[in-house]
Amino acid sequence: MKDVQLRKLFTDTDQYAGKEVVVRGWVRTNRSSNKFGFVEINDGSYFKSVQVVYEEENIENYEQIAKAPIAAALCVIGELTLTPEAKQPFEIKATKIVVEADSDADYPLQKKRHSLEFLREIAHLRPRSNTFSAVFRVRSLVAYAIHRFFQDQNFVYVHTPIITGSDAEGAGEMFQVTTLDLDKLPRNDDGKIDYSQDFFGKETNLTVSGQLEAETFALAFRNVYTFGPTFRAENSNTARHASEFWMIEPEVAFADINDNMELAESMIKYIINYILEHAPEEMKFFNEFIDKGLLDRLNNIVSNEFARITYTEAVEILKKSDKEFQFPVEWGIDLQTEHERYITEEVFKKPVFVTDYPKEIKAFYMRLNEDGKTVAAMDLLVPGVGEIIGGSQREERYDNLVARINEMGLHEKDYWWYLDLRKYGGVKHAGYGLGFERIIMYITGMSNIRDVLPFPRTPKTAEF
Amino acid sequence: MKDVQLRKLFTDTDQYAGKEVVVRGWVRTNRSSNKFGFVEINDGSYFKSVQVVYEEENIENYEQIAKAPIAAALCVIGELTLTPEAKQPFEIKATKIVVEADSDADYPLQKKRHSLEFLREIAHLRPRSNTFSAVFRVRSLVAYAIHRFFQDQNFVYVHTPIITGSDAEGAGEMFQVTTLDLDKLPRNDDGKIDYSQDFFGKETNLTVSGQLEAETFALAFRNVYTFGPTFRAENSNTARHASEFWMIEPEVAFADINDNMELAESMIKYIINYILEHAPEEMKFFNEFIDKGLLDRLNNIVSNEFARITYTEAVEILKKSDKEFQFPVEWGIDLQTEHERYITEEVFKKPVFVTDYPKEIKAFYMRLNEDGKTVAAMDLLVPGVGEIIGGSQREERYDNLVARINEMGLHEKDYWWYLDLRKYGGVKHAGYGLGFERIIMYITGMSNIRDVLPFPRTPKTAEF
Repeated sequence: MKDVQLRKLFTDTDQYAGKEVVVRGWVRTNRSSNKFGFVEINDGSYFKSVQVVYEEENIENYEQIAKAPIAAALCVIGELTLTPEAKQPFEIKATKIVVEADSDADYPLQKKRHSLEFLREIAHLRPRSNTFSAVFRVRSLVAYAIHRFFQDQNFVYVHTPIITGSDAEGAGEMFQVTTLDLDKLPRNDDGKIDYSQDFFGKETNLTVSGQLEAETFALAFRNVYTFGPTFRAENSNTARHASEFWMIEPEVAFADINDNMELAESMIKYIINYILEHAPEEMKFFNEFIDKGLLDRLNNIVSNEFARITYTEAVEILKKSDKEFQFPVEWGIDLQTEHERYITEEVFKKPVFVTDYPKEIKAFYMRLNEDGKTVAAMDLLVPGVGEIIGGSQREERYDNLVARINEMGLHEKDYWWYLDLRKYGGVKHAGYGLGFERIIMYITGMSNIRDVLPFPRTPKTAEF
Repeated sequence: MKDVQLRKLFTDTDQYAGKEVVVRGWVRTNRSSNKFGFVEINDGSYFKSVQVVYEEENIENYEQIAKAPIAAALCVIGELTLTPEAKQPFEIKATKIVVEADSDADYPLQKKRHSLEFLREIAHLRPRSNTFSAVFRVRSLVAYAIHRFFQDQNFVYVHTPIITGSDAEGAGEMFQVTTLDLDKLPRNDDGKIDYSQDFFGKETNLTVSGQLEAETFALAFRNVYTFGPTFRAENSNTARHASEFWMIEPEVAFADINDNMELAESMIKYIINYILEHAPEEMKFFNEFIDKGLLDRLNNIVSNEFARITYTEAVEILKKSDKEFQFPVEWGIDLQTEHERYITEEVFKKPVFVTDYPKEIKAFYMRLNEDGKTVAAMDLLVPGVGEIIGGSQREERYDNLVARINEMGLHEKDYWWYLDLRKYGGVKHAGYGLGFERIIMYITGMSNIRDVLPFPRTPKTAEF
């Protein structure tokens, strides 16, 4: 007889009521008298555990089961009985239980609460805890929701390269990738390292963004998106930064900054609705134990239009405010998290797109506006987090782009293929980047990026 | 008036018949007399292009349009007219055409056929060609089919780390990741490089497999899968190897090698059915221009059960055969591609699982069989390619695993967390790896891995 996953029992209970079922799972709690016992098992397929009742008089190996420790694995045969009076909707009255795997007594995840810091040290076991079971299922569902959102609209998913030989992205500090023997570095006549002998015949790094490559695909397929790992070698030890994280970068041809904002807004709403529908148990748990206002906040987001203001308007709002900011506000400054959060949390109380930033504080590829001072950038700020999306309409005019590359002290020849896009049918196009971990933090209420990455990589930390 | 994507016009033609539509796209061909012209435009949303008819007497800028070069972008307003007599199902009779972007005369992708080698040099433009438009759309759809297959069965998608500090995977040569200044390497007193000053405080590499980490999640969620980039620093310049490629690694708790084979077989069939349904135009193109027997072969696969033989049986078959192999066959050898292809192409003429290999030629984590000589490994061989999947039931018995680690000369302490899984509820479990590019090659008939990766990384090549 084939076993049934617990998710099936919980989501389709009536089908199994009164019937014999086989289930497998790991012990979460186990208590017993000399007559009967209750063991809660969980197989990871569902957030909740199932309660199994076992009685001395009909379970052959009663004593063994009564001693089964947390994390031991059991196979249970028994009848599924509805329990309308109890907290749980049903239980299983066991007729037979087999221990499929034992667990040592020093299992680190005992019933008591553990600190998130401690759980990070046992990242190989923490997905068995309630919190991380919820986090990593939601992470998986959000990833899928993102694919669904784009694929349903006929976007092409493109795997942009991880190892990059171009120094052209300019979005942050990079990790070097090499197969040279560092103890015997080959050198040229002038004493410089001879990278022609490195694996790729030149210096290579880990990518910080797939955007430039994604643009090449957008100008072929019209609608594309990336979803892959990106890297930053910045030595910043904050709760919001990791050295390895995942990013989603849609890019759309024949689209301007307004189309871009529409896409971003509908994507965020789609993801939240998907999670509210597909992970109700997990979301209830987060709302109760991690972040009390979570569900209200998310429901508020899906049912309201996002605000849209220009950078210039944002600066005016900030200057007029009574609030004391650590960083003084003047037109031209880069907005700090304190500014962003004031605008989205206190002024608008909902997500806000801020557009048209001074060109000096934005990347070379953003489209210059008519005023010659600002670019068609858009950042999405959300309550509780600040910036969650950064994007722009891209500069599609060849001469403007070359001018910006030179102005920024970059090298035109590094961008030959990117410039080609502007020579051959280079229509208007726009795109943005969504930090995947940021949206997971936002949806779960978890406040440290280390707790939404399965095995986080941060300065001085690359365990497992 | 909003524009309509070409895919909509082709898949829902009747809705638009006789109506005015707005479309945008890039010129694929353009020919004209002094009275009227035909321009084919494609917006990348669909494999086929749409034909637009424009006439001198009602198109204001007729001369400009008549001169619009390949790759220029047009916005066309006109009436969609069914053309039941013609090759194409409909055309658009333009009333207005606007040039949205011009194209230089030296556009490299002119109408004539180009070699695949030449197209690799212009990887930023090749998705605009028929072949690569088809390849990369199929690649996107296969990726999505894989997510759907697993998510529909409640598998949890896990992002295993790309940068790894553990040397434990042992599946191949690795790339080193560092932020040390190679010109000023810090050294210890004994003259060795001081990796405590490197970004992660130790030596780190790019992952060759997420399996070991995936196992930690399988023993929490029961059903999990990875889908991410993996790396090999081997200097092998073949048509089947890339230095950076994507891999899918499902891992299932409470599963043995037979469950593993069932999962792999149903996954392959699901993917093929999904592509046949969702990319019929592209598949027709591959069947006609890339690989004549392709559709027959794929249809054959989805409608037949895969064969299953043991390694020992495979060796017997090979020894009995009249075929002259380059590598002689004896029990104990690793099967070569010539052997694999003979078995799947000439003996079974369909996909074949080969199981229970000698432990000496397989990884330390595979489960030792009762005979003490073989392990519960499974490779899936398919006609035309050879091995496409490699997997196994994992060794869940602590003592056996430690013994194998020592036998292979590995270090127990490097595997502390992997061994923990065997101490705390370490039930039987199994999984496999599917090379993503291999399945794309198999489904499209493309014979070089460089032609199914958007921007391939191979020895001495990391362009774009």
